[in-house]
Amino acid sequence: MYEGVVQDLIDELGRLPGVGPKGAQRIAFHLLAADPADVRRLAEVLLEVKAKARFCSVCGNVAEEEMCRICRDPRRDPALICVVEESKDVVAIERTREFRGRYHVLGGAISPLEGIGPEQLRIRELLARLEDGSVTEIILATDPNIEGDATAAYLTRMLRPMGLQVTRLASGLPVGGDLEYADEVTLGRAFAGRRSAGE
Amino acid sequence: MYEGVVQDLIDELGRLPGVGPKGAQRIAFHLLAADPADVRRLAEVLLEVKAKARFCSVCGNVAEEEMCRICRDPRRDPALICVVEESKDVVAIERTREFRGRYHVLGGAISPLEGIGPEQLRIRELLARLEDGSVTEIILATDPNIEGDATAAYLTRMLRPMGLQVTRLASGLPVGGDLEYADEVTLGRAFAGRRSAGE
Repeated sequence: MYEGVVQDLIDELGRLPGVGPKGAQRIAFHLLAADPADVRRLAEVLLEVKAKARFCSVCGNVAEEEMCRICRDPRRDPALICVVEESKDVVAIERTREFRGRYHVLGGAISPLEGIGPEQLRIRELLARLEDGSVTEIILATDPNIEGDATAAYLTRMLRPMGLQVTRLASGLPVGGDLEYADEVTLGRAFAGRRSAGE
Repeated sequence: MYEGVVQDLIDELGRLPGVGPKGAQRIAFHLLAADPADVRRLAEVLLEVKAKARFCSVCGNVAEEEMCRICRDPRRDPALICVVEESKDVVAIERTREFRGRYHVLGGAISPLEGIGPEQLRIRELLARLEDGSVTEIILATDPNIEGDATAAYLTRMLRPMGLQVTRLASGLPVGGDLEYADEVTLGRAFAGRRSAGE
């Protein structure tokens, strides 16, 4: 046990995800030795993020205003919605610069094990966005795992009867990967999704 | 890239030791969803630690006053000083409840590779504590690695001619460990330091 406030800091840091007791101690000593201005900046940004950050009223992405940057951008195609589980998925897809439509962040995936059903996800908000008929295609970009697949299947069953084009991101071998190291599920999907060579 | 302050927070968190970009993102989203009071407490303790925490003027350990808790404690044996590299070593030794003397925190170990020589460590401060002759034994508890051993050897050469008893923590097999998994250096030290059975 350290004296007073140093132990308080280690305790607080230890509550953060992915930071164990050793990591908390290491960060605390780093901060003890750090420039006070740097530590003040970290403290201020912590307070600021709680004061400013919120979720976009349209898509559910992280935002600093009523609507996020992407929903406010008139150059983004309003006919195309890419459905993802989390805000970090938006960031990952934006990095590819491949997608020029808009997003819808579900806030998770269907997971009976964790007690998450469709009603806990932002599906009602997605349906509301489809009411005016301007959206023509929904790209399901939930994670390629059991929960993401179940969520995609659920949404497909719901959306296809509405006359929408519903697509799912391709699953297969990661580019730059080594075939021999691919797990059997990925390899199986790569076979199932095989395309005519040279395309 | 996230909007404004969320990205600022991820950037600041990513500068902490042991927190990579993924970890910073994970912590940021945890804090976004967390109770504002919890985040405020973390921010406050960060500011408080820089305002309050300092280093004991006697032993160099982390303290909240001019002298640390251990140096202020009259029940601790002033004839015995345990020399360690860092404050976290003090915490580890205190946990054993075996040692009733005082400490001296060097602030590191001699490491020519990292450009740390004896003059960068708190050795002058250690010598100052020995001037009044009240200290009779110095226990060298630097890490059992090359740098820690070099530091212990340096201090032994310096302190033994002063008529002090200078000891080094025993190296050997960790209790509860498996002999077959011990590395050869540890096993070699366990042989070199073997004692009469039944002691």
